[in-house]
Order: sequence, then structure tokens, then C-alpha cells
Amino acid sequence: MEPIEIKVLDKGFVRLINFLGGDETVVLAARVSTGKGLKGEEHDKKLIHYLMKHRHETPFEHSVFQFHISCPLFVARQWFRHRIASYNERSGRYVEYEDEFYLPERLRLQSKSNKQASEFGEIPNEQELLRMIQETYDLVYERYKRLLAAGVARELARAILPLSLYTQFYWTINARSLMNFINLRADASAQWEIRQYAEAIAKIFKAKMPWTWEAFVQHVWKGENPAITF
Amino acid sequence: MEPIEIKVLDKGFVRLINFLGGDETVVLAARVSTGKGLKGEEHDKKLIHYLMKHRHETPFEHSVFQFHISCPLFVARQWFRHRIASYNERSGRYVEYEDEFYLPERLRLQSKSNKQASEFGEIPNEQELLRMIQETYDLVYERYKRLLAAGVARELARAILPLSLYTQFYWTINARSLMNFINLRADASAQWEIRQYAEAIAKIFKAKMPWTWEAFVQHVWKGENPAITF
Amino acid sequence: MEPIEIKVLDKGFVRLINFLGGDETVVLAARVSTGKGLKGEEHDKKLIHYLMKHRHETPFEHSVFQFHISCPLFVARQWFRHRIASYNERSGRYVEYEDEFYLPERLRLQSKSNKQASEFGEIPNEQELLRMIQETYDLVYERYKRLLAAGVARELARAILPLSLYTQFYWTINARSLMNFINLRADASAQWEIRQYAEAIAKIFKAKMPWTWEAFVQHVWKGENPAITF
Amino acid sequence: MEPIEIKVLDKGFVRLINFLGGDETVVLAARVSTGKGLKGEEHDKKLIHYLMKHRHETPFEHSVFQFHISCPLFVARQWFRHRIASYNERSGRYVEYEDEFYLPERLRLQSKSNKQASEFGEIPNEQELLRMIQETYDLVYERYKRLLAAGVARELARAILPLSLYTQFYWTINARSLMNFINLRADASAQWEIRQYAEAIAKIFKAKMPWTWEAFVQHVWKGENPAITF
Repeated sequence: MEPIEIKVLDKGFVRLINFLGGDETVVLAARVSTGKGLKGEEHDKKLIHYLMKHRHETPFEHSVFQFHISCPLFVARQWFRHRIASYNERSGRYVEYEDEFYLPERLRLQSKSNKQASEFGEIPNEQELLRMIQETYDLVYERYKRLLAAGVARELARAILPLSLYTQFYWTINARSLMNFINLRADASAQWEIRQYAEAIAKIFKAKMPWTWEAFVQHVWKGENPAITF
Repeated sequence: MEPIEIKVLDKGFVRLINFLGGDETVVLAARVSTGKGLKGEEHDKKLIHYLMKHRHETPFEHSVFQFHISCPLFVARQWFRHRIASYNERSGRYVEYEDEFYLPERLRLQSKSNKQASEFGEIPNEQELLRMIQETYDLVYERYKRLLAAGVARELARAILPLSLYTQFYWTINARSLMNFINLRADASAQWEIRQYAEAIAKIFKAKMPWTWEAFVQHVWKGENPAITF
Repeated sequence: MEPIEIKVLDKGFVRLINFLGGDETVVLAARVSTGKGLKGEEHDKKLIHYLMKHRHETPFEHSVFQFHISCPLFVARQWFRHRIASYNERSGRYVEYEDEFYLPERLRLQSKSNKQASEFGEIPNEQELLRMIQETYDLVYERYKRLLAAGVARELARAILPLSLYTQFYWTINARSLMNFINLRADASAQWEIRQYAEAIAKIFKAKMPWTWEAFVQHVWKGENPAITF
Repeated sequence: MEPIEIKVLDKGFVRLINFLGGDETVVLAARVSTGKGLKGEEHDKKLIHYLMKHRHETPFEHSVFQFHISCPLFVARQWFRHRIASYNERSGRYVEYEDEFYLPERLRLQSKSNKQASEFGEIPNEQELLRMIQETYDLVYERYKRLLAAGVARELARAILPLSLYTQFYWTINARSLMNFINLRADASAQWEIRQYAEAIAKIFKAKMPWTWEAFVQHVWKGENPAITF
């Protein structure tokens, strides 16, 4: 298949590189229990809604998405908490990192109502602070290179690099686990940066499994996010 | 893709209905760590051997097999112990079971050396015993039907059916977990019946991921089974 | 600790043999994120409610229940579908099964409204049918013994035994996965037999983690079952 | 129980805070299959060796370790790849990070033979480089504080902090998965820093499950590490 790619943040991407299954596979897997097969769009769609509504989630496991992801480390750290999935990541022990750090377009304020959240708003010296951040990246990266030049092992030198560093990984995940990911990471309570990724993934999910997506939004999604609608 | 089907035992089958990935996907997933891609057969094969030998097993998770299986319940019970996989099974609560029971061609003796194993050998009245088994199936199935006819719920009536009853299920599993399945279930210490399934699956595995299979047999497989060779 | 045992069905049991954690462990695990510890009952209880309501489920994984279970095979087959748990079961390859089969006190009718359910009601010749079931168990078990006496391997002879056969297993499961088990198996849509087990387990859960139980029933439990209340 | 604590690296620790099971639980879980219980040290130890040698790994899942860990982020990133375990971590969205960064006592050279490894050796200006590293930490931390003071959200400000930052987490893991952790992370091919943690954990493992440890080292451990012996 042709990969589907969506750019995310300043230097990242979500790229679907492989896919197995789809809405019909959900139906076929569920109907194994009754010894029946496909019955036409109307019936099959209704079955998917029934499964979703009544928490019969196993038939959704037989569809599998394979992504190539590029994102900052602090996003990857939240991502890898999702254990029902497969990961292979760029290794900073094996290769030298490139000068690729996340620089937000705008800085966000600490939320006043939610201790772990942020909100958009006025930050007086925003441009100056953004320049300071970029300058820090340049300075730290230059020192990383200096350590490497001195013969220091990559695995040790990287310890001074910031969490905004971009990494890449392969990610294979079934549709059930992916819906859980979207539920938690596309929600308004998730950090804004991972939310951008979750929304890109949701778009791809919807394109590949439109009936499942519709049923998910209607019966399971409880979060807040205007981008998650049908 | 065209399904690949192999008949197993007297009435069962293993049917590959879908597949994602392959040897090249193993290589690509592993090379994410180094930022490289495919490098040609010789190098790529060597990498797969390296990964297998040094227990770098995660790159094998990005290839996924989807099977439709038909097997007796006592085999399914051993099968479902493999937790890193997805299952959807025929439901005896939902549908009436058909008159489909496993009747071995030959009976096996209790092993003298291994308390949990069996061995082929002479059983004096083997044909008579096999007839008794078939007769038991007929009698019990007739009573199952009688319970259903009296209005007894399927979920309750089925409790009298024997473990030789055939069931069917969808099974989606990644190549890493599948190698573990083959390692345990194609081994001489596994019950002869599930071994027939594991060997059929091994054949399909070898056809779909020949380099991975070769590396698996060479570096990981420790079991005894003349069918598992390269 | 003293095991807690509850008898279930005619010959089964649920026995808690070990337990790690508890409500305070939930609180401590959650507060790692903030660098704080316990704050007194009122605050800690409130936190548990907050976690449950907002689907922060990982802190519940750090409490672990260990059970010894005895139940019929058709119940065990539903049980073992729960993959986030550890199992070790009686082996019919290794030991001879005893003459222990589930005989319901009453037979249930096939539900008219739900294709996979049953309901209590009048079955004209109920006592006669129950006698027929017991007679079938006696007859099949006698034949099982005859096969063993003829030298047939235990793993093969057992194939004629019915699904009502009792098995035993060790089951270790964390509180998060256990709440999912209760959610699915104590619900009115689950088979009546496994529901009896799920209710026994729910009682033990409530005794060991009373705050978590209260929060679970209030925020997560959506099922129908008068036994699941606080 | 009294926690067992071992200091690791310059500012980290491994602290066992809870434990369920032990060698006898392995034996009891395995003997469920045969309907037997404990048989005395000689027989029970022999069984554990048998299980380990023949890859019967499930009985080891019924023993559970609960740790409180403090380690640098680049170590935590390797750690969290182990998916069969439970984690709750300090949240940099919720709380301000303290000025706690890993400063190695000595720098290591990039290995000449292994692209992803390091080795101890002479680095001409080692002390100067170490000073540069500490200075970088001070400078970056001061800027992190400046961002916070300007009202920037914690979740965003932390993106400039280095991978050497210390984090803390609760970790609950069964003995089977823990042996896999030790196998991979105490090996000579693992990064030196996580190896120090794996060795501390191995010591605790050995103290709590001495028979299992002995069998593990004898039958499963293939790695290189003089600290892993019996």
C-alpha cells in the first residue's frame, strides 16, 4: 500500500506504512462465534455498533495498524506507556542524534484550574523565551558533539540532550488498543503536543475503518476534543 | 490474499487468511534504530540471524499472521493459554454445536517414562475401544439434542458435550509470539494432536518468512521434532 | 494470611490465598506522580474516586490478588479468555480426573429475547432430564476409566469427558484486570454459572479494597446485577 | 515488610517495598497441575530446576515484586520497554522537577568493536568534560526555572531538561518477567548505567527467591556479567 503521511508539530510525522484488516474483518471475527459471514452493509454496520456499545472489544483486535512515527522524546515517553503494541525505536547508543529539537510555535501558560495542564494565553516576553530555548538547544548540541569528538560513548554523551529531541519509531498496534490510545491521548486533558499526534492518527483510523470509527465516537469516546467527531 | 489451508486431524484445519509484514519488515523495523533501510539480501539475512541469535526479538513483532482454526476443544484449551494473541471463537451459547467430534485414527499408550506423555504402541482391543468412543459421542450428542428440544438453554445443554468437540476461532498473532507457540507446541513433549497443528502452522510460517524461519530453527528452536528443520 | 474461601456451584470454590497491596497502595502508586504520600482517609478516598472517574487505571495495577479456583471446564474456558493474568491449571495429561462434574440444581430455558442467554422458568420434565445428565456423567466416566485401564494415555482418554468436568487452577491478577473481569462476568449478560464466581470474587475484592470497590461501583460498573452494589 | 534499599549511581536507588509469593509459591502453582502440594526442600528445589530447564515459565508468574525506583530518564526509557509490568511515574506536568541530574564518576569511550556499546579507558581531558557537563546541567536548570517563573507550563518548560534528569516510579512485576529483565539488562551488552540497576535488582531477587535464582543462573542466564553468579 501507499503510505499515508501527516506532518505533526514542527518536525514530526505520523506515517501509516501497513495495515491489516478493516471493518469487514471486525465483522468476520465477530461472526465466527455464530458461524456466519458478511451480511451486507446495513447488517454489518449494525453489528459493529452493537459490539462497540456492549463492550465486545475482542473483534477489533484483528485489525492492525503499522506506523512510522517521528516525535519529541517527551511525547515518546507518554506514547510508550501503551503496552499493548510493538515498538522499535531509533537508538542513541547506535547512532549519533541529529540537531533536531522541538521548538513550539507558541509557549503555553501553566493552567490555573488543572495542576497538570496548560492553556494558551499571553506570555509577555514569549519571543525572547523562545529564542532562549533555541539557543539552549544549539549550545547543548554543540557540547554533545564536543563529547563525541573527545571519544565519549554515544550512549553517555546523549545524556545531556534535552527531552525535546526528536526520535523515530515503528509502531504496530491493533485497532482495540489504538482506540484506547485515542481515547486517552486525543482528550483535552492530554498534553497538547501528543494530542496533535493522536488527532493525526484518528484521521487515519477513520479513513481505514470508517464504520468502526463512527461506532467508537458514538459509544465509547467520552473525551473533549472538537476534532474527534464523525 | 488467497487463503492457505492445511487439513489437520480428522476434521480440523489451519487456514491463513491474512498476513502483514514479512522478512523485510523485520529488517526495516530493526533498522529504525540505526536510521537505515534495506541493504540487499545478504546483509538483510545476516541481520535477521544476528537479531535471532542475540535475542533482539521485538523486530519480529511487526509481522502479523491471521488464521482461521478448526480444532477439538482439548486442543483449543492448550492453545488459548498463549496470551499474546487475539482470539474470537465459536460460541456454544449462541449457536447449536454440530455433531463434530475428534476420533483418533489410533489410540496411544500412556508413556512409561513421562507422566504427562503418550506413545504409539500395541493396544489389544483398539478397534473396539475406538467404536466405544464413537458410540459415546453419538449417545451424548443425541442427549444434547434432547435437552435442546426440551427448551434447555444451549449454554447449559452443552455442558454434557465431550472435550473432543470441534470448535473454530479467529487467531491473530505476531511472529514473535508465534515462534514461542511453535517452540512449545511443535515440541515432542507437547500432546500429539496440538503438535499436528503446530507443524501445519510452522509450514505456513516458513512459506511467509523464510529467512526468519531459517534463523529461528538455527538459533532458537531447542525442541525435538523431525518436521522442524530447514 | 488466612485464606478466604467461598463455595460456588455444587462442587466449586473461590479461595483467596494471597494478596499484595490494597487501597493505600493505589494511593501511594498514584502519588508517585506528585512526590506525595498518604494524606489521611478523606483525601485518599477522594483521590481513588478521582482516578476511577477519570480512567487513570494504572495505579490499580499495583494491587494483586492470588486465588485458587475450582470450577467446571466450560466456566474455565470463559475465564481463561482474560489474558492479563497468570494461570496454572490441573493437567489431565498428568493426573487422572476424578468423578467430579457440575450438575445444576435447576435447568434454565433458552432465552427468547437474547440468542446467547438463558432464563429461569418451567421445564416440564426437569427432574428426569437432570437424572439423564447425571447418568451420562456416570456412563462417560466409567468409559474413561475403561480406556485408562486398557492402557490408553490420559491425554487421549480425557477427550470423551464432558465440559461439566471440574478443574482447578491458580490465578494471579491485578486489581485493574480483576475489575474488568467483574465488569464482564458479573453482568446479567454473562452465563449464570460464571456469574456466581464473579460475585464471590467481587465480595472478596470489596473486603480487601473497600474504597476502590466503592469507586468502581459508582464510576465504572455499568452492568446489571443486584449483587453488585455498595 | 521492611523495605530493602540499594543505592545506585550517584543519586538513584532500588527499593523493594512489597513482595508476594516466593520459591514455595512457584512449587505450589506448578503442583496445581498434579494436585499435590509441598514435598520438602529436596523435592521442591528439584522441581524448580526442572521447570526452569524445560521452559515451564508460568509458575514463576505467581510471585510478584514491587519496587520504588529512582533513575535517570535515559535509563527509565530503556526500562519502560518491558511491557509485562506495571508503572506509575513522577509527572513533570504535575510537579516541578528538582535539580537532580546524573553525573557519571567517569566517562566511557565509544567501543571500537561494538557500535552500540562503550568501554572504560583513558579520556585525556575527562575532568574538564565532566565539569562542562555539570555546568550544562546548572545552566539548563536555571533556564527551566526562568521559564516557570515567566508562567510557562511545566509540561512545556521541561522539554529543555536533559535525559540525565532523575525520575522516580513504582514498578510491580512478576518473577518471570523480572528474570527476562535481568537477562537483558544485566548483560554486558546493556548500557553500564541500567546494568547497575539490574544487578541491584538481581541481588534482591536472589534474597527473596534463592532456589529460583539458582535455577535461573544455571539454566537460563546466558549473558556475561561476573556479578550474576550463584
